[in-house]
Amino acid sequence: MACKSNDPVVLSDEDRFLVKVTEDLPSLDTCYRFVVKNSGGSGAVSTFVGITRDTFQNKRVLKLSYEGYVPMAEKELFKLCHDTCKKYASVQKIAAVHILGDCPVGHASVILAASSPHRREAMHAAEYLIDELKRRIPIWKKEVYEGDSSVWKENAETREMERCS
Amino acid sequence: MACKSNDPVVLSDEDRFLVKVTEDLPSLDTCYRFVVKNSGGSGAVSTFVGITRDTFQNKRVLKLSYEGYVPMAEKELFKLCHDTCKKYASVQKIAAVHILGDCPVGHASVILAASSPHRREAMHAAEYLIDELKRRIPIWKKEVYEGDSSVWKENAETREMERCS
Repeated sequence: MACKSNDPVVLSDEDRFLVKVTEDLPSLDTCYRFVVKNSGGSGAVSTFVGITRDTFQNKRVLKLSYEGYVPMAEKELFKLCHDTCKKYASVQKIAAVHILGDCPVGHASVILAASSPHRREAMHAAEYLIDELKRRIPIWKKEVYEGDSSVWKENAETREMERCS
Repeated sequence: MACKSNDPVVLSDEDRFLVKVTEDLPSLDTCYRFVVKNSGGSGAVSTFVGITRDTFQNKRVLKLSYEGYVPMAEKELFKLCHDTCKKYASVQKIAAVHILGDCPVGHASVILAASSPHRREAMHAAEYLIDELKRRIPIWKKEVYEGDSSVWKENAETREMERCS
């Protein structure tokens, strides 16, 4: 597997992929700058940001809180980056970062960015990244509602389980 | 036509849409903050950034330069924002900004951002925005290559005309 690139030097995984699962989430701007840097052949960057919404099924959400085992979650994110480059061969660089801990309403919980020479592959790669992240990455979220109620959920959409607390 | 929104106040065009055709392009961060602000129901933001590439058909590009009549281009961008909300009814806010004048390699020439409660509509709206912007918006670009050659192009892809200078 190798991303095609116009860069003169073949980039290592660490140079091609910014992967972090962390309480200190990098900003959208940091992710954007990463996928553009040393990537003069990139004419397109597509990003996706997931944000804590203020309501869920008519209940007022106060915050979300995420938990996960960082080494395993980051390993899966690296694998997802590789799979994305395999599926969208012109993608040059990817940022894939997810928050841990509390995420108040209006704050980003996940940021994805992909660069490529032309726009279609960057956009489809970003869509693939968020769909697969939701499906694969082992991170759990707790929704905290007004009135002290809360629900833990597996972040993965296709195998979602709920446990009221 | 009206964007659906969880916001308590119905937003005016100026509050829902950030539209600019300008030599002083707003940053990606500015566009992102605009589409998130006063939009507590938004759980998703999708963005697209078009960037000057270093090569075109094996020629080394030094910069692009854009020209257009600002009132007409901005009017068309507002219309495109309305059309996007009509097509993707859950989209809450949109930023659509395009540079005028010189745009060196690696710099953004166009930034689009859309927010919505769930991810699919924001992503598809961003894709629609860049496709339609390329098709409709009356902005011309000059590609300046190494060795003093240059080419003027209509930015619109489907009716592209070239004139060597």
